[in-house]
Amino acid sequence: MTAPLTIALDAMGGDHAPGIVVDGAEIARERFPHVKFVFFGDETRIKPLLARIPALQVVSQIEHADQVVSSAAKPSQAVRAGRRSSMRLAIDAVSSGRAGVVVSAGNTGALMAMAKLVLKTLPGIDRPAIASFFPTQRGETVMLDLGANVECDTDNLVQFALMGAVFARTALGLLQPTVGLLNIGSEEMKGHEEIRTAAARLRETSLPLRFHGFIEGDDIAAGTVDVVVTDGFTGNVALKTAEGTAKLYTEFLRRAFRSSVMARFGYLFARGAFRKLKIRTDPRRYNGAMLLGLRGVCVKSHGGTDALGFANAVSVAVDLVANGFNEKIKEEMHLLDGSGIPEAGAMAV
Amino acid sequence: MTAPLTIALDAMGGDHAPGIVVDGAEIARERFPHVKFVFFGDETRIKPLLARIPALQVVSQIEHADQVVSSAAKPSQAVRAGRRSSMRLAIDAVSSGRAGVVVSAGNTGALMAMAKLVLKTLPGIDRPAIASFFPTQRGETVMLDLGANVECDTDNLVQFALMGAVFARTALGLLQPTVGLLNIGSEEMKGHEEIRTAAARLRETSLPLRFHGFIEGDDIAAGTVDVVVTDGFTGNVALKTAEGTAKLYTEFLRRAFRSSVMARFGYLFARGAFRKLKIRTDPRRYNGAMLLGLRGVCVKSHGGTDALGFANAVSVAVDLVANGFNEKIKEEMHLLDGSGIPEAGAMAV
Repeated sequence: MTAPLTIALDAMGGDHAPGIVVDGAEIARERFPHVKFVFFGDETRIKPLLARIPALQVVSQIEHADQVVSSAAKPSQAVRAGRRSSMRLAIDAVSSGRAGVVVSAGNTGALMAMAKLVLKTLPGIDRPAIASFFPTQRGETVMLDLGANVECDTDNLVQFALMGAVFARTALGLLQPTVGLLNIGSEEMKGHEEIRTAAARLRETSLPLRFHGFIEGDDIAAGTVDVVVTDGFTGNVALKTAEGTAKLYTEFLRRAFRSSVMARFGYLFARGAFRKLKIRTDPRRYNGAMLLGLRGVCVKSHGGTDALGFANAVSVAVDLVANGFNEKIKEEMHLLDGSGIPEAGAMAV
Repeated sequence: MTAPLTIALDAMGGDHAPGIVVDGAEIARERFPHVKFVFFGDETRIKPLLARIPALQVVSQIEHADQVVSSAAKPSQAVRAGRRSSMRLAIDAVSSGRAGVVVSAGNTGALMAMAKLVLKTLPGIDRPAIASFFPTQRGETVMLDLGANVECDTDNLVQFALMGAVFARTALGLLQPTVGLLNIGSEEMKGHEEIRTAAARLRETSLPLRFHGFIEGDDIAAGTVDVVVTDGFTGNVALKTAEGTAKLYTEFLRRAFRSSVMARFGYLFARGAFRKLKIRTDPRRYNGAMLLGLRGVCVKSHGGTDALGFANAVSVAVDLVANGFNEKIKEEMHLLDGSGIPEAGAMAV
């Protein structure tokens, strides 16, 4: 019998904490009855919320934290001054082995900085990256980095490609995922120096991934590759541009259905199908980004999400642990040594 | 009586040239009966295409060019070796005053490099930028740079903000457009050094624009600002990510309507409204990007477009000339001298 998984929750992170964290945990508990929770945060606020849900209360503990990392805090400031914050104590719980994974909807930069300091990066990884799934024409695609690293050098991008490939194999069950580098053209001479050098190195790789080459922005949603690699600035802009475009399209659709009596009538017949479409494109469904490259599993929920979205982030965390993600990524990182990637020396353990 | 506008067309540019260039010109001629065309390219191929359309033939001339700039050509190579290309001769026609504007669906980098060499940049502008319209929740927004400059410094970004504001005033009729800098967070400390410095300078500006501050990817489609300013790498990725997301959503919608008999039935009632939605979100509607910052009007059409899309690019060109865009931008650029923008010395004429 395997020990039950304990999940450390930053109960104070996000716009609607701690309410959505407690309610999200309850939805997750229904999905995974054997999971246990530790809520880190203001005990006087969490306790009454938990008391409403006896089934959740039974599998939960509260660890009081009197500090909260604000959404406006600089990462360095949060690391320095937030040692007794709910976020920090939740990460500490993974470091000490008390919890198997941490989930937070708090300040992304602070979470990344604290997780890096406490959990440390894996051998061969200079900087962790934020990865998440995107819906595409062909299923789902992993994209990274989504905002942890504003500027990335060639080593970072090559490491992201490897981490993304392991993530795709573990979470999507793909044997040899295809990896593309996001650029503004597919020709070899296009784009930044860093990208061109990273592409040259990935073309030579003997690692278990297929390097597709450069892809462009429209290839993300087309599902041209299983893993999209880019720097954190571009990835964050692309992620949010896609979200904004989806919202715009939904609004245009809503207006179209209201534009005539006939259209309203048509909606009555088609609404079942549209409800399915709405579920399929629901951003909460894709909530739960993984902080890749750390010696511990850390999942970031969108700050503005609701209970269902937070529960989905918890589900991502459970899946990753159940599939032994971090063990797999550790194994793979050893391959970097003899990967045949030119100039890989700097990345060796 | 004003002299009729003559449009120089790169008849060999784009995936489906010269067919769509000739057919696109005919659609444009129906919209603007007083416009004249000069087709630059392979006479033996253009002549029979024109001969099919007598009304167009009457207002058109052909100037033979025996070179074509390939879509894979490097800009520097195109500039050096393409002096007798259809693209170059079409640009030369604007430089000599024979044409009022040039439209090309050819290689973007080559077009930008040739236009910069032949037409020269406006006083105060270091580098031209590519600008286009985006549909948003609130109407239309101008975004630049969409791919001319992979890396941009602070001066470039400040100049883009000014050019974009003039473009929005001229083309959208806004008195004092709002301008936002694309970033990965709205806080002052977020993003690259170049963006932060550009923001600090734009906050001090006395020019006729309202600087909104930083915006994020989802603000583009939300229509938060009238002008979105970013470097050419990020802008190109955002543009194509939005296009890809719109395509994905359309595909999901198509599948939803086919998912049940009820949904198919609903479609029959709503199809009128959906046809309108399709027209509204048709990417051809937004075809025609402007090369801003040159001493001549140069419009870039999407390389893969059809005749209707090419006609829309020609319409953008006609509108810009009719509204005296280049005269206005020249006037405004003089404001840079006494703009009160700190460190603006480097940008003075």
